Amino acid sequence: MTDKPFGVPFMLSYDLSLIPLMVDLLIDERVPVVLDNGLLDENIYQKFKTAGTKIICRLPNPNLADALKAQKLGADILVLTGFDEGGTLPMKEVGSFSVLAEFVGKVDLPIMLAGGIADKKAVQAALTLGAEGIWVGTAFIATKECRASVKVKQWIVDSTANDLFLFRTEPYYYRSLPTELAKQCFQMSESGASRADIAKVMNAGTGMRLGMLEGDFENGYVSVGNGIGAINRIKSVQEMIDELMS
Amino acid sequence: MTDKPFGVPFMLSYDLSLIPLMVDLLIDERVPVVLDNGLLDENIYQKFKTAGTKIICRLPNPNLADALKAQKLGADILVLTGFDEGGTLPMKEVGSFSVLAEFVGKVDLPIMLAGGIADKKAVQAALTLGAEGIWVGTAFIATKECRASVKVKQWIVDSTANDLFLFRTEPYYYRSLPTELAKQCFQMSESGASRADIAKVMNAGTGMRLGMLEGDFENGYVSVGNGIGAINRIKSVQEMIDELMS
Repeated sequence: MTDKPFGVPFMLSYDLSLIPLMVDLLIDERVPVVLDNGLLDENIYQKFKTAGTKIICRLPNPNLADALKAQKLGADILVLTGFDEGGTLPMKEVGSFSVLAEFVGKVDLPIMLAGGIADKKAVQAALTLGAEGIWVGTAFIATKECRASVKVKQWIVDSTANDLFLFRTEPYYYRSLPTELAKQCFQMSESGASRADIAKVMNAGTGMRLGMLEGDFENGYVSVGNGIGAINRIKSVQEMIDELMS
Repeated sequence: MTDKPFGVPFMLSYDLSLIPLMVDLLIDERVPVVLDNGLLDENIYQKFKTAGTKIICRLPNPNLADALKAQKLGADILVLTGFDEGGTLPMKEVGSFSVLAEFVGKVDLPIMLAGGIADKKAVQAALTLGAEGIWVGTAFIATKECRASVKVKQWIVDSTANDLFLFRTEPYYYRSLPTELAKQCFQMSESGASRADIAKVMNAGTGMRLGMLEGDFENGYVSVGNGIGAINRIKSVQEMIDELMS
């Protein structure tokens, strides 16, 4: 499909028993870069290091202890996520503007900032705040090539961060475009429902597939970040990246 | 006390009946700059405009309709606050990194960004994101001149944004250093207590005075923003401003 370098996350589902199989597969296939979503497992890091695979570590809850552990285990890049991202959010409400301050100068790894980066200004701000790279999600959803429903892409173009709904769920918070399901979860969250009860209503994998791939805004949710205010039309991936890096 | 230019907010308490008196007083005393915390009252703006007073408008909930109303009423500067600020937070969880995108190019007023700005990097990032000025709160609390308890100043120096507690209360959310009172409010928020019940426990004016001025971390709360990770010692106001603007 491509002769360009690419990376693969080794945690593809919440079924952790698949991870050893994925690790061996990625090494066998000589995938050059892998993503650790914060498992920080010493044996897995050792296997990848031995194979010469580069490891990007993205901490679900950015904190200095885990960052230093990633460094010690041999991660090559650290991704720190601010509370401006979409979907499943960190426990602490530390925005992309503030999340790096605690790490810059204390961690000896290149840092990528994630959360709300969808235009050139945001890229430049991330670098100003101390990031050496950026991690982009939502801006890829609004591209021509993305498998998301065209209804989702258009809704992103037509919306701003003020339109999004944030609600409590497992493990902490979730941010979605205001689908009927997201509104229901928000109302439950406001009324003091438990995180477990809200998570049941979200219907995790299914709710995401319905909302994002099928454009079913009754029964699904649509995970996008606070950067959507800067997304004003559906572009090709090439155009989008060219604009971000211009 | 000073021969430098200065500004005064005309809403000093939740007792709105005092506002007409304040407006007349500020005009009589020829205060050059006033702050409107989002009341957007046409008569008040008219009085200040007639007197030649400059008006800074800070919207409690940044949104385009109110920003355009402020512009129409004759505000001179618009302050937009991201969810990285301390204390009473906006309704929508749009961080300082993302809050400007919706306004830049659509509002014909100079914009100041507020929320989490406590060092030079943050100032530069704010300007990169489209602000023409910055609005700083917490960094002033950690200065020698501030009336806050020295225990508060030292706690700011010793803490990062990850240490702060966010909880639901009236009108929406509050962010505090982890005093016993703040922990209690956080637990109530997590357990689904109503905003009104949490607000009663906070004991608004008193809880703030006890925490911030008297350093009573049992019975008070301490309102600081996500920028505290960048505050590493107690400085003079002059030093702090010199560093921010260097």
